[in-house]
Amino acid sequence: SLNNKRKTTQLKEMINSPKLEFIMEAHSGLSARIVEESGFKGIWGSGLAISAMMGVRDSNEASWTQITDVLDFMADATSVPILLDADTGFGNFNNARRLVSKLEQIGVAGCCMEDKLFPKTNSLLDGRKQDLANIEEFALKIKACKDRQKDPDFIVVARVEALIAGWGMDEALRRAEAYRNAGADAILMHSKKSDPSDIEGFMKVWKNQGPVVVVPTKYYKTPAKDLADMGVSMVIFANHNMRTCITAMQKTTARIFKDKSLVGVESEVASVKEVFRLQRDDELIDAESKYLPVK
Amino acid sequence: SLNNKRKTTQLKEMINSPKLEFIMEAHSGLSARIVEESGFKGIWGSGLAISAMMGVRDSNEASWTQITDVLDFMADATSVPILLDADTGFGNFNNARRLVSKLEQIGVAGCCMEDKLFPKTNSLLDGRKQDLANIEEFALKIKACKDRQKDPDFIVVARVEALIAGWGMDEALRRAEAYRNAGADAILMHSKKSDPSDIEGFMKVWKNQGPVVVVPTKYYKTPAKDLADMGVSMVIFANHNMRTCITAMQKTTARIFKDKSLVGVESEVASVKEVFRLQRDDELIDAESKYLPVK
Amino acid sequence: SLNNKRKTTQLKEMINSPKLEFIMEAHSGLSARIVEESGFKGIWGSGLAISAMMGVRDSNEASWTQITDVLDFMADATSVPILLDADTGFGNFNNARRLVSKLEQIGVAGCCMEDKLFPKTNSLLDGRKQDLANIEEFALKIKACKDRQKDPDFIVVARVEALIAGWGMDEALRRAEAYRNAGADAILMHSKKSDPSDIEGFMKVWKNQGPVVVVPTKYYKTPAKDLADMGVSMVIFANHNMRTCITAMQKTTARIFKDKSLVGVESEVASVKEVFRLQRDDELIDAESKYLPVK
Amino acid sequence: SLNNKRKTTQLKEMINSPKLEFIMEAHSGLSARIVEESGFKGIWGSGLAISAMMGVRDSNEASWTQITDVLDFMADATSVPILLDADTGFGNFNNARRLVSKLEQIGVAGCCMEDKLFPKTNSLLDGRKQDLANIEEFALKIKACKDRQKDPDFIVVARVEALIAGWGMDEALRRAEAYRNAGADAILMHSKKSDPSDIEGFMKVWKNQGPVVVVPTKYYKTPAKDLADMGVSMVIFANHNMRTCITAMQKTTARIFKDKSLVGVESEVASVKEVFRLQRDDELIDAESKYLPVK
Ligand SMILES: [Mg+2]
Ligand SMILES: [Mg+2]
Ligand SMILES: [Mg+2]
Ligand SMILES: [Mg+2]
Repeated sequence: SLNNKRKTTQLKEMINSPKLEFIMEAHSGLSARIVEESGFKGIWGSGLAISAMMGVRDSNEASWTQITDVLDFMADATSVPILLDADTGFGNFNNARRLVSKLEQIGVAGCCMEDKLFPKTNSLLDGRKQDLANIEEFALKIKACKDRQKDPDFIVVARVEALIAGWGMDEALRRAEAYRNAGADAILMHSKKSDPSDIEGFMKVWKNQGPVVVVPTKYYKTPAKDLADMGVSMVIFANHNMRTCITAMQKTTARIFKDKSLVGVESEVASVKEVFRLQRDDELIDAESKYLPVK
Repeated sequence: SLNNKRKTTQLKEMINSPKLEFIMEAHSGLSARIVEESGFKGIWGSGLAISAMMGVRDSNEASWTQITDVLDFMADATSVPILLDADTGFGNFNNARRLVSKLEQIGVAGCCMEDKLFPKTNSLLDGRKQDLANIEEFALKIKACKDRQKDPDFIVVARVEALIAGWGMDEALRRAEAYRNAGADAILMHSKKSDPSDIEGFMKVWKNQGPVVVVPTKYYKTPAKDLADMGVSMVIFANHNMRTCITAMQKTTARIFKDKSLVGVESEVASVKEVFRLQRDDELIDAESKYLPVK
Repeated sequence: SLNNKRKTTQLKEMINSPKLEFIMEAHSGLSARIVEESGFKGIWGSGLAISAMMGVRDSNEASWTQITDVLDFMADATSVPILLDADTGFGNFNNARRLVSKLEQIGVAGCCMEDKLFPKTNSLLDGRKQDLANIEEFALKIKACKDRQKDPDFIVVARVEALIAGWGMDEALRRAEAYRNAGADAILMHSKKSDPSDIEGFMKVWKNQGPVVVVPTKYYKTPAKDLADMGVSMVIFANHNMRTCITAMQKTTARIFKDKSLVGVESEVASVKEVFRLQRDDELIDAESKYLPVK
Repeated sequence: SLNNKRKTTQLKEMINSPKLEFIMEAHSGLSARIVEESGFKGIWGSGLAISAMMGVRDSNEASWTQITDVLDFMADATSVPILLDADTGFGNFNNARRLVSKLEQIGVAGCCMEDKLFPKTNSLLDGRKQDLANIEEFALKIKACKDRQKDPDFIVVARVEALIAGWGMDEALRRAEAYRNAGADAILMHSKKSDPSDIEGFMKVWKNQGPVVVVPTKYYKTPAKDLADMGVSMVIFANHNMRTCITAMQKTTARIFKDKSLVGVESEVASVKEVFRLQRDDELIDAESKYLPVK
């Protein structure tokens, strides 16, 4: 089955498959396991979600090793591949390739690097300057990462922020081509329009030069079929587990605070038994009977 | 106002106040901020919730510094006090007092230590042995922690597991008294009965020798007023933010997986703007205008 | 050559080779690199040295992930295998097997676990109680580690503390046999006598049931040839890089403090150029010319 | 005595004192303790030494939290103040001020930030480009740090790299003045000339506008008295503990490798007893008698 393949190979095959594939955001070991149990064949390690969960901003306030520490738990908790939102690679080519080595070590299947400057700013923040990296320098950063990886199937996705930054389609195409030529396994073309016109426009000029990944956070109404028809390879549902947690916690906490009681929420939340199941407590019970002496 | 006081002082006053107080579980910077925004005056740093979030078991699979790394984000994100579920203190008295120093450093207001052996087992797991610590050794561990703290208002709660382990009320009382005499600021009397008879029985024999904290995860139907009438000082709502996240993520992820679309969940989850608000992005916008040169 | 083999395979071959092999202590990426450059075919990741370097005690004051963080740098810096002094495995069988997984992940070739209780006490400390683990429980801990490892050549050494703790040769033999039967790749028989009589006595009764590792910190005058003649497989020079650093730093710092000048030490210490060489700065220079655009 | 003062106050007083003060490099808890025991009143947390010890390059290969983890051990191990070599602050003003908060938390008394770009390059590396930060942006970074600190005595030193980068004395002066006006507690004027002419030239044009710190790694022959006469406030002996460790470890390891014996080095290295003394094992012995039950 698929899961006998290396995680990197699984992700590579998804990106290169002729059909549209989907991966879903996680930000912790727990959320990653839920994504896998739900049937998704891959996980998006979202920078926004991980930083939000920590209570810090999506502006590289957490160090890159604080991020990889979270990813380590996520990779341990799952058997499907994780694609990490690696921001800019946390510095120059040398920081980026060092990250690649650590990601391979902890079992992350690929990373996506965006052509901005460190420290980054979240792409969806209104009215914030979105400085772009020098195109040649970023292409060489991608190349440095590809040269560094030990597993030939490890994935490096190059994320183009030209449309986010308002630089236009020509620049977006020029960058996508440069990054693809530098070795990127796929291009993530980002857009914050509420319709898919940016993506549609890009797909036309791109002419199938390689796999394209998209993040329809803003153009969420666009049916998957439309994206498939445009030739998109993979869709990232980028931050909705973190966002549903916010809503759920706000509601649950408000209710408990008001009631000073758990009665109103008990049937609404997962049981303690379900928590233990998600923690794989059964395996530990078995192991204890095997590895602890009978007293 | 209350918040001009040190976090330790806030927690100490809550524990010693004549009225019943409530604290709510959090397991990340984000959840801690939501607990504070909801009105709770204190936060429970739950070992079960933090381990579950990581995707590991509540059996000290995460190292103690992996726990304090999470607590550091939680304390940074909030201005109300955090009481950490410190399990057994992660070893003997020397490990426990070292933990106290690190908790003071990161701004955690207190910790609760339970009289089990390292590595611990979650108290609610059915049919699992729950070895108790030697009573004298555990009392001295509490004393070592109290002797170590620099801030006189730092709180050490001693959690008695005698009823969980089936050792009976006499043993529970004997332990509570020993730990109180060793310097514990409060006793957490734990019970996994579905009614409050354990707590009621204990409160009668305890005769108000000091503050008592309870965790009504199993006897959740008991009204707060009843606990107040028994003389309980503080109630911990121990794991419901983590449990509501599980339910919310399972539903949201399942729906997105089925639909291959975000349309069905968009209105159900917090907006991206709300995420930015919770991350305090406004402060960074102000700071950028202050600390970045105009180009 | 040897170095084309996996690090685990290298270490396994050393332990099983008919000739006496030697490994040398390191406690940081830098010291590990120096050990490799000196010609040693393996490295001892000493718990005493690592804790001393951190300024804490060899009593599990550092968390197990603080130890693996150091080991990660050590493994990155070297191509010869590292055998980690893993103390008791940092808890019970479940903590120990989790450690094995993390060691495999970061490229450590093996670990040595000692049959004491967590938190441990350094074996060479005079007049300190040295509680031993239950023999059956420790044997099952070894088995849990061997069952967990993914790489068949990962090494688990069982360290017998019976002679340290004064329990006598019969107990030492009984334990060594139990651990070997449970799957230990080698037995480390520890002694703090200033002569090798403990080791000699053990080797006679052991009768070649498997590889034996020794640590002649106290019986340092015994020639290697004598140990080889007894049938010992591997000698660990356990803490001398850390100890030479102490002497060197005390001398150098005292001299600079007295002189308020660097003149007296400049020729005595490694040049800045040598520091850069040890940091492999040449590789970064090459990479910069390859991966940074020409301006 | 001095040590009843906060570490920040100790450092502030040293920097503002009329006499020339000296601080000495450390890179670990152990080396920091040795520096304090030797009589130095302050410690330099050297970026070069810490990265070298880790086996990585002085190019921000280690994350900023990996650095603060080392500093945490250093601060715990000592009662004299530590001034951290904070490179560029590990990013922009926001990263730099976040670092300041974390340094205050772990008890580091001050930090020195240099006006380069992240990731930095070591200043003493020949023929490597040394890009300088925009002067206004760097001044605002200093201001952001000063605005962030909670302890009014926390020290921020601004390090001017203009002479290292070959930009001349006018630029050096212009930068020093801008950073001082932005709130820097002192200016570190760096030079890699083998004579003190750079420093002498700067001190003349600087005209005592505030404290000046220097690092005579290359002009080590210049007597302290000459630097005092120029008006320098503090001298940093920047990397000699790390360099003496390299020499000592290379010699000791080579000797043991050649001899396959410890006999030749035993009398040359610190005793195991001295290691235990440096680890403050006596305090633990006392504590065990106090906090462990008599069996
Ligand atoms: Mg992102
Ligand atoms: Mg708990
Ligand atoms: Mg050891
Ligand atoms: Mg430096």
